[in-house]
Amino acid sequence: MEFINGTRMCGGPAYNDLLEGGRRNQTVQVSGMVHVKRPVGGGLTFLKLRLRDGLLQCVCSGLDLAGVPEESAVTVSGALREETRAPGGVELAAESVEVLSRPAEPMPVPVAKARLNVNLDTELGLRPVLLRHLRARSIFRIQAGLSRAFREYLQKEGFTEVHTPKIVHAGAEGGPNIFRLDYFGRKAFLAQSPQFYKQTMVGAFERVYEVAPVFRAEKHATTRHLNEYTSMDFEMGFLRSFTDVMEMETGFLRYAMDLLRREYAGDAARLDIDIPEVTEIPAIRFDEAKRLAAEKYGYQIRDPYDLEPEEEHAIGRYAREEWGSDFVFVTHYPGRKRPFYAMDDPDDPRYTLSFDLLFRGMEVTTGGQRIHDYGQQVAKLEKLGMDPAEFGSYLMIHRHGMPPHGGLGIGLERLTMQLCGLDNVRCASLFPRDLSRLEP
Amino acid sequence: MEFINGTRMCGGPAYNDLLEGGRRNQTVQVSGMVHVKRPVGGGLTFLKLRLRDGLLQCVCSGLDLAGVPEESAVTVSGALREETRAPGGVELAAESVEVLSRPAEPMPVPVAKARLNVNLDTELGLRPVLLRHLRARSIFRIQAGLSRAFREYLQKEGFTEVHTPKIVHAGAEGGPNIFRLDYFGRKAFLAQSPQFYKQTMVGAFERVYEVAPVFRAEKHATTRHLNEYTSMDFEMGFLRSFTDVMEMETGFLRYAMDLLRREYAGDAARLDIDIPEVTEIPAIRFDEAKRLAAEKYGYQIRDPYDLEPEEEHAIGRYAREEWGSDFVFVTHYPGRKRPFYAMDDPDDPRYTLSFDLLFRGMEVTTGGQRIHDYGQQVAKLEKLGMDPAEFGSYLMIHRHGMPPHGGLGIGLERLTMQLCGLDNVRCASLFPRDLSRLEP
Repeated sequence: MEFINGTRMCGGPAYNDLLEGGRRNQTVQVSGMVHVKRPVGGGLTFLKLRLRDGLLQCVCSGLDLAGVPEESAVTVSGALREETRAPGGVELAAESVEVLSRPAEPMPVPVAKARLNVNLDTELGLRPVLLRHLRARSIFRIQAGLSRAFREYLQKEGFTEVHTPKIVHAGAEGGPNIFRLDYFGRKAFLAQSPQFYKQTMVGAFERVYEVAPVFRAEKHATTRHLNEYTSMDFEMGFLRSFTDVMEMETGFLRYAMDLLRREYAGDAARLDIDIPEVTEIPAIRFDEAKRLAAEKYGYQIRDPYDLEPEEEHAIGRYAREEWGSDFVFVTHYPGRKRPFYAMDDPDDPRYTLSFDLLFRGMEVTTGGQRIHDYGQQVAKLEKLGMDPAEFGSYLMIHRHGMPPHGGLGIGLERLTMQLCGLDNVRCASLFPRDLSRLEP
Repeated sequence: MEFINGTRMCGGPAYNDLLEGGRRNQTVQVSGMVHVKRPVGGGLTFLKLRLRDGLLQCVCSGLDLAGVPEESAVTVSGALREETRAPGGVELAAESVEVLSRPAEPMPVPVAKARLNVNLDTELGLRPVLLRHLRARSIFRIQAGLSRAFREYLQKEGFTEVHTPKIVHAGAEGGPNIFRLDYFGRKAFLAQSPQFYKQTMVGAFERVYEVAPVFRAEKHATTRHLNEYTSMDFEMGFLRSFTDVMEMETGFLRYAMDLLRREYAGDAARLDIDIPEVTEIPAIRFDEAKRLAAEKYGYQIRDPYDLEPEEEHAIGRYAREEWGSDFVFVTHYPGRKRPFYAMDDPDDPRYTLSFDLLFRGMEVTTGGQRIHDYGQQVAKLEKLGMDPAEFGSYLMIHRHGMPPHGGLGIGLERLTMQLCGLDNVRCASLFPRDLSRLEP
């Protein structure tokens, strides 16, 4: 029997700890993976050690490193000294290298180069090891920063986190784009969104959020669709207007970009990311946005009820050129493109009190106000030819009283993609799921 | 066109804002749901308003509230005044009540009573509205505090959040307890755990965590199993010993309990929760724990290779009585009860470098060290009669080098259940999934 007290933490110092002044000229022990091994002659070898938060240069003089191939796990001991030519301004003068583990084979593609230079298919197939490339690592650290910012901001605004089921008895978005599974002999589905549940929780908590996977069985093979992605959802009660939801999102985006600038500057620099300043975001009606962009860029509007990717791109360009903004809210989508729970605009019921957020010309958010009145929701279902009886547990909240409410869902991978300037959303998913990809 | 600047936030003040001194004797506007409406005669009516973080007492004198049933959404204006008999020490002297929405029907079960007094089946069927009960709300606020603490603590310890796929091509835990689905004509599964992926990410980030749903097609109908639950997973590299994982968990638990005491005291008080002090946690070998509990409580050990629920309970009781601890680590589980990636104990390969954490006599965590060496992992797979070729993308990380590593998974619902003293894990899941329950 022994006691664990939670203070004997493993691992050596992190890279950022080493950069602090206090450790200079001290002997330190650092554990990491051999990212690069480069003999430079005269018995001298440079090791670059991959730590969880950076790359530490180690100079090994007169040490036998024959048994230390790249991607070995090692603990290096030595003096930490100032070296202005090394990244971060310090290097480790290694006195000993202890090998903790060795790879069985060298990497299939060298990960130490600035760019991987393999095609996307190869890269995704080798993802389990190619994520060790520092660019890939930075993309997913930025992504972690975005979901962290979402939670921190909403926590501060009085939201409660919820965990809602992904195996469901009915889809929220309707349509055929839903995965089916066998649930102990019963038909079940994978949740396309936490829509019904997050609305439900507004009745209890007033403000809720969830960051969780959603599943869409869309047969798209585009650079902007995934069949499983991470949705950052919130829902809030006591709206005065559906623009309150856009205010909350704008507040989040400002918080997120500030957090990235403050705590993820190294990753942003490696990716050469331009983190936008979020001061104010233009909001423009759907029909007006379509008209303005078509007029300015001289094209015909093909479908008055939908925004095609090219049109999103044109509206994003318009917002950049006319208002200097990377973001633009497009509001008042036509009702025929919005689901049954969308609140119609009382001033013109062909449109809804809803919006998308475009970021650099791509939709990254869909949101809006929901119907809260029981009679109104039942009437809309019936008008759409749907059977209210199939939505019994959802309509329970309307029947027994709901405040005016609304919310949104942000696609984390798309937000990451646009922020990092990636040309395929698969690059912003650790292990993407698409029509042909179920592995790794 | 308008600009959204993220500062015009909706909703009135939160309950905690009202408790601060500065608002006393001021006129305020507060929005909330009518939790209780109680006429007390003489033209006087008490409204209790359910805000997102508390219950505000409003005194209405001479106002016509005939059209304001319980579970209406309202905005009440009036003077906030000191009233020592009211919870929180303040009440609102209502001057006007504006109705934002009304329910179509009264609640099926009154939610304002201290206890619901319905059976579990009824409660779960009516969950969408019964979550408005303050006890239920407090349970899930405590739960949100636990997952928040997990992330905050690990963030501080240099962990990176990852989002790994839930639709997978192979199960991590093996066996028949896995949900199958059709993935565009191919056979796919729902992830039983993020095991392979989190190990994979140790090669890139060294320390990673994920809070996400996992799916187990177990045909159990017990008070401690769910078919979908929230798993809090972490995985870390450069272990000196598998006890490093237990150190990290102990650090988390201390942080979590401190956070709950600090920021969730109202919820803990409502639930009459005893939040344990985490100073040190006893760790005892599996075989020794079984022997000591059997000796002390006078029963026969039936299965030397497994811990039955009754035995977990006895060991938990032993830890409480002998060491004064609500938690106890049980270490060195027999290899035959651990999956193929578990590291065998080099001192006695019948056992593994693994552990469970029992909390008040129930397993809430499974963890341990994993095999990091390629040859060793292939040999173990073959010894177990499994085909290494089926684990190609997983073994890629071993082939190309991994540090010694390990981690754990904590069942969020079980942790919540044990902390809140609930007698069924379903009470700790917003919308539980079990053999018969797929809805709501």
